[in-house]
Amino acid sequence: MSDRILRLQHVEIRVPDLELCTAYYTEVLGLVETARDVRDGVDRVFLKCWDEHEHHSVVLRQAPTYGLDHMAFKVAEAGDLDYFTDKLQAVSVPVKRYAARELGPGWGEAIRFETPSGHLVELVHGMERLGNMLPMTNPPPRPQDLVGIAPPRLDHVFVMAEDVEAFSAFFIDVLEFRLTEQIVANDGHQLAAFLERSHTPHDIAVITGPNGALHHFAFWMDDWNGIRDAADTLAYHGVTIDVAPTRHGVTRGYTTYFFDPVGNRNELFTGGYWVDPDFEPITWTEEEMGRAIFYYHRQVNERFFTVHS
Amino acid sequence: MSDRILRLQHVEIRVPDLELCTAYYTEVLGLVETARDVRDGVDRVFLKCWDEHEHHSVVLRQAPTYGLDHMAFKVAEAGDLDYFTDKLQAVSVPVKRYAARELGPGWGEAIRFETPSGHLVELVHGMERLGNMLPMTNPPPRPQDLVGIAPPRLDHVFVMAEDVEAFSAFFIDVLEFRLTEQIVANDGHQLAAFLERSHTPHDIAVITGPNGALHHFAFWMDDWNGIRDAADTLAYHGVTIDVAPTRHGVTRGYTTYFFDPVGNRNELFTGGYWVDPDFEPITWTEEEMGRAIFYYHRQVNERFFTVHS
Amino acid sequence: MSDRILRLQHVEIRVPDLELCTAYYTEVLGLVETARDVRDGVDRVFLKCWDEHEHHSVVLRQAPTYGLDHMAFKVAEAGDLDYFTDKLQAVSVPVKRYAARELGPGWGEAIRFETPSGHLVELVHGMERLGNMLPMTNPPPRPQDLVGIAPPRLDHVFVMAEDVEAFSAFFIDVLEFRLTEQIVANDGHQLAAFLERSHTPHDIAVITGPNGALHHFAFWMDDWNGIRDAADTLAYHGVTIDVAPTRHGVTRGYTTYFFDPVGNRNELFTGGYWVDPDFEPITWTEEEMGRAIFYYHRQVNERFFTVHS
Amino acid sequence: MSDRILRLQHVEIRVPDLELCTAYYTEVLGLVETARDVRDGVDRVFLKCWDEHEHHSVVLRQAPTYGLDHMAFKVAEAGDLDYFTDKLQAVSVPVKRYAARELGPGWGEAIRFETPSGHLVELVHGMERLGNMLPMTNPPPRPQDLVGIAPPRLDHVFVMAEDVEAFSAFFIDVLEFRLTEQIVANDGHQLAAFLERSHTPHDIAVITGPNGALHHFAFWMDDWNGIRDAADTLAYHGVTIDVAPTRHGVTRGYTTYFFDPVGNRNELFTGGYWVDPDFEPITWTEEEMGRAIFYYHRQVNERFFTVHS
Repeated sequence: MSDRILRLQHVEIRVPDLELCTAYYTEVLGLVETARDVRDGVDRVFLKCWDEHEHHSVVLRQAPTYGLDHMAFKVAEAGDLDYFTDKLQAVSVPVKRYAARELGPGWGEAIRFETPSGHLVELVHGMERLGNMLPMTNPPPRPQDLVGIAPPRLDHVFVMAEDVEAFSAFFIDVLEFRLTEQIVANDGHQLAAFLERSHTPHDIAVITGPNGALHHFAFWMDDWNGIRDAADTLAYHGVTIDVAPTRHGVTRGYTTYFFDPVGNRNELFTGGYWVDPDFEPITWTEEEMGRAIFYYHRQVNERFFTVHS
Repeated sequence: MSDRILRLQHVEIRVPDLELCTAYYTEVLGLVETARDVRDGVDRVFLKCWDEHEHHSVVLRQAPTYGLDHMAFKVAEAGDLDYFTDKLQAVSVPVKRYAARELGPGWGEAIRFETPSGHLVELVHGMERLGNMLPMTNPPPRPQDLVGIAPPRLDHVFVMAEDVEAFSAFFIDVLEFRLTEQIVANDGHQLAAFLERSHTPHDIAVITGPNGALHHFAFWMDDWNGIRDAADTLAYHGVTIDVAPTRHGVTRGYTTYFFDPVGNRNELFTGGYWVDPDFEPITWTEEEMGRAIFYYHRQVNERFFTVHS
Repeated sequence: MSDRILRLQHVEIRVPDLELCTAYYTEVLGLVETARDVRDGVDRVFLKCWDEHEHHSVVLRQAPTYGLDHMAFKVAEAGDLDYFTDKLQAVSVPVKRYAARELGPGWGEAIRFETPSGHLVELVHGMERLGNMLPMTNPPPRPQDLVGIAPPRLDHVFVMAEDVEAFSAFFIDVLEFRLTEQIVANDGHQLAAFLERSHTPHDIAVITGPNGALHHFAFWMDDWNGIRDAADTLAYHGVTIDVAPTRHGVTRGYTTYFFDPVGNRNELFTGGYWVDPDFEPITWTEEEMGRAIFYYHRQVNERFFTVHS
Repeated sequence: MSDRILRLQHVEIRVPDLELCTAYYTEVLGLVETARDVRDGVDRVFLKCWDEHEHHSVVLRQAPTYGLDHMAFKVAEAGDLDYFTDKLQAVSVPVKRYAARELGPGWGEAIRFETPSGHLVELVHGMERLGNMLPMTNPPPRPQDLVGIAPPRLDHVFVMAEDVEAFSAFFIDVLEFRLTEQIVANDGHQLAAFLERSHTPHDIAVITGPNGALHHFAFWMDDWNGIRDAADTLAYHGVTIDVAPTRHGVTRGYTTYFFDPVGNRNELFTGGYWVDPDFEPITWTEEEMGRAIFYYHRQVNERFFTVHS
């Protein structure tokens, strides 16, 4: 018996300026650097949030352009890699297998494959455990020496695909994700889909756009006050805030969007609700898409659809 | 493949004054009454929280004394009832099986058995789904006509047992719960254990005390401000507040404790952290038990250990 | 010895649809209706916030167009009306005096005059006291039966003037307000001014625009969570939200803007800081006007400058 | 025309261990050290909160025992010192006058006198202005490099007196404070009184106890979340928390109490309401004293009445 896919494990992000981005992600966002590595001539910096126990949740990868290299989901057991390899091969999706540490420091055993939308996806098991930054005995609720925003953990990733329905079908049928919410066009086709494994409104979401694109990745914050304090920190450091603290209709979550120094969109997210496996999906109509995305403004700024990586 | 036990489904609570308690749970706590039933001469009132989709999460049962009749956990699939029946019988625990609606209105198919501590536990599947109080299309984040405190859902149950270690061993070995935190005496034996299935710090917890006793059951609140507003509502209605809003060391959660009109302890809870199945349990020492339970005061009022139901 | 002007007492607002606006201000915003009156053929509805003690803080006045009829400030003593009459006449501003109840039900003794920008201003003393909605002995912190947003009190008014400097000079020299913050153009002239009597960042503010115009009036909220909950209520009722919850640079305050059913802009405001009479004013430069007004977005939507009443 | 007494300016506190207390007040509480001074053989450390503009609001004074040396209130104009000297001498209270800087670095011109309860009170004007920690042009809402709790300002002082009525009569009649709330015994005499000049529920309060005693002094926090975060910081540093975050009935404020390293009680306070000079005082009865002080628990721990300095 296995839980199969548990949650989003990490994103690997392309950044043209590795040092600038490392400074931003550690000093402003407040992640912790856990390793640096050069492999096949590519420099990478490994980061984790303070309350995560494993080696990394964000990998910065030196590259000519910004965007998403790949996203990885944690599976509960090593045997799940075989299980999904079989399922993927049964639908003719090529799968590559990697031994522990083969993909980088602290890395677990993994498989990789492409979605119909051309996104590179990894399933991983057995990441090196570094512990969160608290003692195992009589821990305080939070380290006192955190810097910057310091979200406790990575939350979800949001990508774009030309064919949203094919994307969600792949995640549902093959990877056993569950649909929580969707935005549906007047002609009935899916404009956006929100999919989960962790009993939250989304571990991954997808909206209509260019194949392979990243819309944003999001970190969890503990509450609406934390989102506001974070916006103060972003403003203080001159970070470009895309969308100031507000609320989503979809997920009911609280949010703020902003850009890292090279143009990757980040989100801070909190709220949501508990999702049982038998959760009946919520549908948003095309007319209410504005409200679905930004519940208070009821309209979406143009950047939301046109700026991605 | 099944997730097995997903979360706490409901508690059935004994109350000597059914009408008074119904008024309290609906008007002050703000649950929704979904049914009334008389079965075997026993009056019961069925309640749910607004954001729960199933028929009930709290059942009030007319009885001469207060306390816990039983607690029920939701399983992901009907086959899980067979699976756990086998596991229970393998360790010589008698299991009774009930058809859907046999145990009451809206009730699912269920099995029942006793823990070593004499608590009656139910696993249930296929509860009647009533929906939360929002539309399935373009829903607002929250109904506007809620009354009282109106927590979105039940969170966990906290019981007492003479042999805490036997209790947690039973939940871990047979029911496949996972230990997140424990309080350990200087002589090494477990004084309290916190156990989860829902990737949160606890779905059930147990502390040293009389077998079969209920310490409290808890509802989820969205944030620390909600806990405070709830305390205002409790104070306004003259509810006896046991512990005003504060923080736990264990679970890192925010809390307030209070008593229903017949003496069952309720809690409002928020916070906590994400728990992977490979989470390494946290240990609190006997010296730090005060801090473990009430992080700010560092000491536990006597009522906490001596008043239960 | 007198404190002279204490704070904003009320605004009288023109509304083409009195019943619709009364419904909005009582059911959505959650003010309390205290009186209705017809005088000189004009229908008016009198409203107060729950924690205000006096007869009214918002008066709705049936009129063909929306906008501000007048604003009134409370003075500490009846003699202050004479004091300011003398000061106004000394600078050749005509003053009209009104006996108690002459201007409407519950009204105090008052003087009225025009600012250089053509705004009608009233100073008032001896309003009828209705009490807030709590008992004078052992009161709870808040009534439990409030509806809608229910801000505790009116906070400030924000108007427009062609000549901001003349406006602030009049308020400072004649009415003894104090400048807390200003936005100054590159050529050195004042684009906006924030003026206080109540030791808060502003009781009245003015920005460049048409003489006599109202930009908005604002109610106090207790915290950032209250602002969010209010935005949920506004969205639920289909109120047009102009600016979702965000932060000002000027005043450091938290805010959300929205429109009443006929187009008068309302604000909910909280935060700010304590202002001593010897407070040294803060200056914002023209380049940073965006940040001054909306600290996170750093730019002001066009509506902010062009839509007023 | 003068506002006379504006607010609490500072407290001077006796501390047997000056270095330990300086470390606590700067590193845990997060005040800023502005000066050190030896005068008449007594070492003193001068501290201010970050958002205060003047030289100091807390003075630590090396002394054999802990407790209150004196409290000082800010007056609006130098002439107010003469005004109150006359009023004090008219009721036969001896007054001492001090030139600027005579009492210490940054100090203003001042008068000092004793209350009937034997508390030393100072009125002061013309303190040296250091500015808050933000620029005068385009300031961010808050410095980013604050340490510890970092409340923005001192709020009020709470003392004890054998004769509460004589104490409040002195503050009302001579110093022109206004009564906002009182706790009254069944026999009609005042057990506690809350007095203001700053339009808030209290600048000073007094409760029955030994003459000359200090119960606590309080710093302002911006909201209930700030109080909670502060409690985390206190707990982390092992500070003795007297009362965890809760709510007062009197003042409606949110609070947490704790002790400095030598036993002086500190409070963090937020909330309250606006007070006009014509505010009608609220009365709490002896039976409801518990609720008046701790609204949720309805009872006062014994320490509250017996531990003071």
